[in-house]
Amino acid sequence: MYDMTIQLHMDGGKHLYEQIYEHIKREIREGKLLTGERLPSTRSMAEYLQVARSTVDTAYGQLLSEGYIESRPYRGYFVCKMDELFRLEDVERRTASGPVSADKGNRSAGSAGFASENGGNDYRNGQEAEEGAVSGVESRKSVQYDFSPHAIDMSAFPFNVWMRITKNILSESDSSLFAQGEPQGDLVLRTTISRYLHSSRGVNCSPEQIIVGAGNDYLLLLLEKILGRHVRIAMENPTYKRAYRIFQSFAYTIVAVDMDENGMSAAGLESENVTAAYVMPSHQFPTGTVMPIGRRAELLRWADGEESRYLIEDDYDSEFRYRGKPIPSLQASDRRGKVIYIGTFSKAIAPAIRVSYMVLPERLLERYRKECFFYSTTVSRIDQRILNEFIQNGHFERYLNKMRKIYRGKHELLLELLQPFKKAFCLSGENAGLHLLLTARDGRTEEELIAGARDLGVKVYGMSDSFIQSNPTQKATILLGYGGLSEEQIRQGMDLLKKAWL
Amino acid sequence: MYDMTIQLHMDGGKHLYEQIYEHIKREIREGKLLTGERLPSTRSMAEYLQVARSTVDTAYGQLLSEGYIESRPYRGYFVCKMDELFRLEDVERRTASGPVSADKGNRSAGSAGFASENGGNDYRNGQEAEEGAVSGVESRKSVQYDFSPHAIDMSAFPFNVWMRITKNILSESDSSLFAQGEPQGDLVLRTTISRYLHSSRGVNCSPEQIIVGAGNDYLLLLLEKILGRHVRIAMENPTYKRAYRIFQSFAYTIVAVDMDENGMSAAGLESENVTAAYVMPSHQFPTGTVMPIGRRAELLRWADGEESRYLIEDDYDSEFRYRGKPIPSLQASDRRGKVIYIGTFSKAIAPAIRVSYMVLPERLLERYRKECFFYSTTVSRIDQRILNEFIQNGHFERYLNKMRKIYRGKHELLLELLQPFKKAFCLSGENAGLHLLLTARDGRTEEELIAGARDLGVKVYGMSDSFIQSNPTQKATILLGYGGLSEEQIRQGMDLLKKAWL
Repeated sequence: MYDMTIQLHMDGGKHLYEQIYEHIKREIREGKLLTGERLPSTRSMAEYLQVARSTVDTAYGQLLSEGYIESRPYRGYFVCKMDELFRLEDVERRTASGPVSADKGNRSAGSAGFASENGGNDYRNGQEAEEGAVSGVESRKSVQYDFSPHAIDMSAFPFNVWMRITKNILSESDSSLFAQGEPQGDLVLRTTISRYLHSSRGVNCSPEQIIVGAGNDYLLLLLEKILGRHVRIAMENPTYKRAYRIFQSFAYTIVAVDMDENGMSAAGLESENVTAAYVMPSHQFPTGTVMPIGRRAELLRWADGEESRYLIEDDYDSEFRYRGKPIPSLQASDRRGKVIYIGTFSKAIAPAIRVSYMVLPERLLERYRKECFFYSTTVSRIDQRILNEFIQNGHFERYLNKMRKIYRGKHELLLELLQPFKKAFCLSGENAGLHLLLTARDGRTEEELIAGARDLGVKVYGMSDSFIQSNPTQKATILLGYGGLSEEQIRQGMDLLKKAWL
Repeated sequence: MYDMTIQLHMDGGKHLYEQIYEHIKREIREGKLLTGERLPSTRSMAEYLQVARSTVDTAYGQLLSEGYIESRPYRGYFVCKMDELFRLEDVERRTASGPVSADKGNRSAGSAGFASENGGNDYRNGQEAEEGAVSGVESRKSVQYDFSPHAIDMSAFPFNVWMRITKNILSESDSSLFAQGEPQGDLVLRTTISRYLHSSRGVNCSPEQIIVGAGNDYLLLLLEKILGRHVRIAMENPTYKRAYRIFQSFAYTIVAVDMDENGMSAAGLESENVTAAYVMPSHQFPTGTVMPIGRRAELLRWADGEESRYLIEDDYDSEFRYRGKPIPSLQASDRRGKVIYIGTFSKAIAPAIRVSYMVLPERLLERYRKECFFYSTTVSRIDQRILNEFIQNGHFERYLNKMRKIYRGKHELLLELLQPFKKAFCLSGENAGLHLLLTARDGRTEEELIAGARDLGVKVYGMSDSFIQSNPTQKATILLGYGGLSEEQIRQGMDLLKKAWL
């Protein structure tokens, strides 16, 4: 049983619940509380500490929501697997120049010790592939190098520009700024987005086809109202797990369609009798596959086959491409209004910019107007204005170009450092995005590879977390994300991986 | 047929579609295009103007989304009833000191000619009570005084404080600010909100019970995931129409429960076999009823009767109360976790502050964690920080006190000016909020009253728009909102109403 000794300070400096929360968090991190260990009940903890039970509730709730502990019905609260925690710790250790996680991220960086949690749960509820690896004292070595495929680099973000724009806008003292904007997003921003999408992604749309919303998840919630409740939707396997969970929460029937080296198979769509397919043709997550034009045409042909069929294109990180000529979006090839295009500024600007956009084909626009016109906008007019000016005054383009250069540098460095690995591993996904994949040529398992890396303080991620249906033929594959690491960190991390794996 | 002569300027100053949009909008406002008139097809308009069809599409789309025109399948585009348009015009005419519409509003103030649209559609799709009144040349007199029950007063908003806080926060250059926050909202803001709710509304909750989201509508979308799909929900009749439409879009079975002078009847709930009830006990919209403690107890007892029963308390404008002692929230009396409490900063701060909050009972919190943990937050961390400091540093309290005084002044003035009306009208809803109700003692219809006012340039609102089920016994009732008008405007508007109605 856990020793409940906690020194509480009643001097008013910190809330009691915060002190309890921090104490337990520290104990978990320092390994004094082990994975799977049961915490005292809130009642007995409250009695012991002589505080209100609600205080302990709050502390436990915070630990729960940050993924340190989990609750099991009728049994109590248990410490989560350490796996999660190391990553959080690492994120917190980073300073202002450090990386933060983007929308398509499994977690977000925290501040002031309240590391934010998001898809952290994603893992917890996902395949428990990594669980076996979490044991032994060595494995508690703290993570020095985190190759998260979801981290991005904020070190070059023009904070000053952002602040100047904000200041200028607020100093207008224009009260209409404080009014609620249009449900779809204000026209000026939608016009700017439509121009940007046209020039950068070949997307053909008028501003009226764009719905601006606070994050992809919200836009998908609207899409549920537009597409209706009884949708059989195809997803690739592996795919982006968060979207999978959201479709699950819609009670959609999700059909995992296997992919070949070109992505989702159109024949699979036909045979599975689905009406919608969720795809990431520019850069599939996690495989990194870029869908060739022939396959795109097949998908579009499939969609044309029935009026009710649609393709949902999630173009989450198309801004970053290093090899070959830019590939336009799938929407750009769509002549019949069959593609629902979704994009975000979370990756290209910052996760805090809670602005995503969805481009609806004309036919669905009518349904949007009918089913969703009464949903107020989720993005404040002020934030829309700031973003609009950031894009319109060229800051976004400059920033993107700078980041492309930075990420390209890291990408090329990593490719170079991966040369010695080529005998034992097969490399893929090297055309775009912020991560690469290594597939073991020998029989080693994902767990072994992850554990070997962790023993040396390196955190890597297994592809199995992204499977929505087991795929026994899949060889152990590791995702190596480099967005959040400096070139120096990449060098050092790869040195350690060489020791661990070669 | 409409004369298509539009002078387009190709010098690049303004988009072509904007010019077309503005031209048509002007024609509608100036009465050159009349209600019900058909616009040329986009094809013929494009041919005539020698522009791309998509340009005309965009212009029409904008007119459509702003409610100037409507599309009828297979028939084309038609000019909407003028009723809508006058109100928009009025909103646009107001300057920086003018009123803007809050979350529980049927429209939002627009800027730069792009008047925003929201619940405008609400009316269009609602009871067409006002339609009959829109005819004749006199009725086109532009609205000088708009007694919208949804307008709020932004003239005293401390823009400078808001800007200073924003500036300070951004100047920290803390990249964790640009990371995505916790799905429920960052703990620091939730803690602040829980304290505010406890002290001002008697709400008992820990920060972990609070979900922060970008607007009530989004929170209701989450609630759908929590409560499930097959809910029989009771609403008062009349009620808040936007919530009604949202529940409709959930495919909930909505049961209109009649109210007496104390609000929703608990016996009605029992007999209708519902599992949820949406109520506004502190200040029902639109009737202004404040639910007495006895009725609250009945509702809570009803909810206790079955584990699956919940009360949804929308506490949308409880900040403004002028008579009697403050009445705590329904949640404050709830000992068994049966109340889902929803509130917003849209009314008390500004509609642009896209921050609402929902307090979940413990039992539903578990379901939230299970069903919604993967939905990312819809409010940026920066906005959360700004709001948190605004509240924590006492600005919110000061602003609320200032606004209470301002609204009380308007409220008392209006009550005084209403004295001469008491013979012909019955006054109600005078305890709280930003509007009063006048019910005709004679046989005049709502339409007659509205038309009579409009003929003199005064816009008033009928209660029938808020009915979700016809109520033939209801006498003509007018809502008089005073939030958005200055005292001088209230005086002048009431003078005109006296001429119109007495």
